Amino acid sequence: MTLREAAEFLRTHDDYLIITHKRPDGDAIGCSVALAELLRAMGKTAWLLPSLDATDLFRDYLTGQTAPAGFEPATVVSVDLASLGLLPPNGEPWRDAIQLAIDHHPSNDGYAAHTLLEGDRAACGEILYALAQELGVMNRTMADMLYVAVSTDTGCFVYSNVTANTHRVAAALLEAGADYKILNKKHFRTKTLARMQLERLILERMHLYHGGAVAVAPISLAMMAEAGAGENDAEDIAAFLGQIQGVRHSATIRELKPGECKISLRTATDLNASAVCAHLGGGGHAAAAGCTVNGTVDEAERAILTAIDGEWEGAHG
Amino acid sequence: MTLREAAEFLRTHDDYLIITHKRPDGDAIGCSVALAELLRAMGKTAWLLPSLDATDLFRDYLTGQTAPAGFEPATVVSVDLASLGLLPPNGEPWRDAIQLAIDHHPSNDGYAAHTLLEGDRAACGEILYALAQELGVMNRTMADMLYVAVSTDTGCFVYSNVTANTHRVAAALLEAGADYKILNKKHFRTKTLARMQLERLILERMHLYHGGAVAVAPISLAMMAEAGAGENDAEDIAAFLGQIQGVRHSATIRELKPGECKISLRTATDLNASAVCAHLGGGGHAAAAGCTVNGTVDEAERAILTAIDGEWEGAHG
Repeated sequence: MTLREAAEFLRTHDDYLIITHKRPDGDAIGCSVALAELLRAMGKTAWLLPSLDATDLFRDYLTGQTAPAGFEPATVVSVDLASLGLLPPNGEPWRDAIQLAIDHHPSNDGYAAHTLLEGDRAACGEILYALAQELGVMNRTMADMLYVAVSTDTGCFVYSNVTANTHRVAAALLEAGADYKILNKKHFRTKTLARMQLERLILERMHLYHGGAVAVAPISLAMMAEAGAGENDAEDIAAFLGQIQGVRHSATIRELKPGECKISLRTATDLNASAVCAHLGGGGHAAAAGCTVNGTVDEAERAILTAIDGEWEGAHG
Repeated sequence: MTLREAAEFLRTHDDYLIITHKRPDGDAIGCSVALAELLRAMGKTAWLLPSLDATDLFRDYLTGQTAPAGFEPATVVSVDLASLGLLPPNGEPWRDAIQLAIDHHPSNDGYAAHTLLEGDRAACGEILYALAQELGVMNRTMADMLYVAVSTDTGCFVYSNVTANTHRVAAALLEAGADYKILNKKHFRTKTLARMQLERLILERMHLYHGGAVAVAPISLAMMAEAGAGENDAEDIAAFLGQIQGVRHSATIRELKPGECKISLRTATDLNASAVCAHLGGGGHAAAAGCTVNGTVDEAERAILTAIDGEWEGAHG
């Protein structure tokens, strides 16, 4: 579907239920709320499917947005949902009923009756912004939510997925009144004390190998407890070591329970993370992969180092 | 001077020396190089005054940009220089000879014969971009350097000084070929190991007060040595504690030499940092101030806590 066709679709339907992926991030939540507001501004009825597993950081944005009991949707739209495998459990009843998918994942597999796909956008929020422009609707809440979408999916405009369009959309959202000072402080300039203490313990206990090009850190249950950290505090922690100057490949070893560890590996272009993790029965992408191994964190560290060495020889030998 | 008048000035002069402030940051270096490139693209001769105290992060950008021995400038232009008090020592000979100042500091005191001042710009780079537009000149090096200017002065678009114009300029620079992926990685996604170890030690030794609203951390000479940290690694470290959730006011206590400490205080709006530091003979701004005290880091910690309590009563009692 083109942008214009999708806008026409939104104009001509009503009683919307909006669905996004499980473990929703800022782009998912921001787009969901912005779309609901957009539709309401056009006189439509629109509600979100409750995101029961939203983290504290995004939960506030959902207040008053979710469908009241007994709401019977006539139109189901998904945002930022790449495949039905990412549906939250409470979305299962609508698995075959999604009429329009609005998405920016090139891997979107066309599960919906209609799809508005722009795979070169850093955030789905950029597509929602274009739709809002096409429909001539914008308000403060939409500007806030689309700013949340665009900024969180780009790490506040720092990731490689940013394009000129991302900045142009951000400029327009600031002009539309997005409260970016508060939002930036909340999303990019605040860490929980538990997260910072977890980072401290990781720095204390990590090991460097290959002349500092490889960093490996344990994240044991004891460390989580010592830091007072929960799941929210450990989010995206696998990327933490990669910011150390000189570190090209990094692994974190999460102790899931005594005797079982989840290894997350991030690599630069000269080492294939997926190939390394395949040695241990895992897989993923070239730059980010994982595997689960039996053993202590020390044993897991030796296992991933051996796997890295195996691929390293091929890459550097 | 208006933008158009400044552009006309640049068109009608030649043999430029470009000066910026001491301890130059990304905006200072980025604007200096971009202006030199802009002038050269117009067929002019233009060189930078050597920035002898540039940090490693920015030094590379100056290669081949500084004036050869014996260069006699006919026109001296400053960028990002708010006052003559911020001239580097090797700029003193030009103190009374600055013909054009291009600046974004509202406090610019009009030291130059002509001034192009836009005090509402987050970065001086935004003004340089507008000048380049006015003169119809842009190339990859200019785009890179102006991106460095705009991104570093806003912490990669996260600080409160960002405006819609900042994002619009960024969009244009990306379209002009700014190598933002490499630049973002270098400036915003890389920390030295020494910096990270210093942050670790700060987290280990900081104290929280007033129910977690106040954080105070020592940075002793021994901690700097343990982290392997030099001055570059400690840059802007005073802002580090402020990101902890719940912390509203934070102080770092740098041991300058045994028996002498520099306190840097950052506060939220309900506590005046300058007033607190005035208790100890220092001063600064409402949100960021400092003072130097005699004593150990422990004594300095007690001193700043007492000073905070003194002002706190006024603010909260």
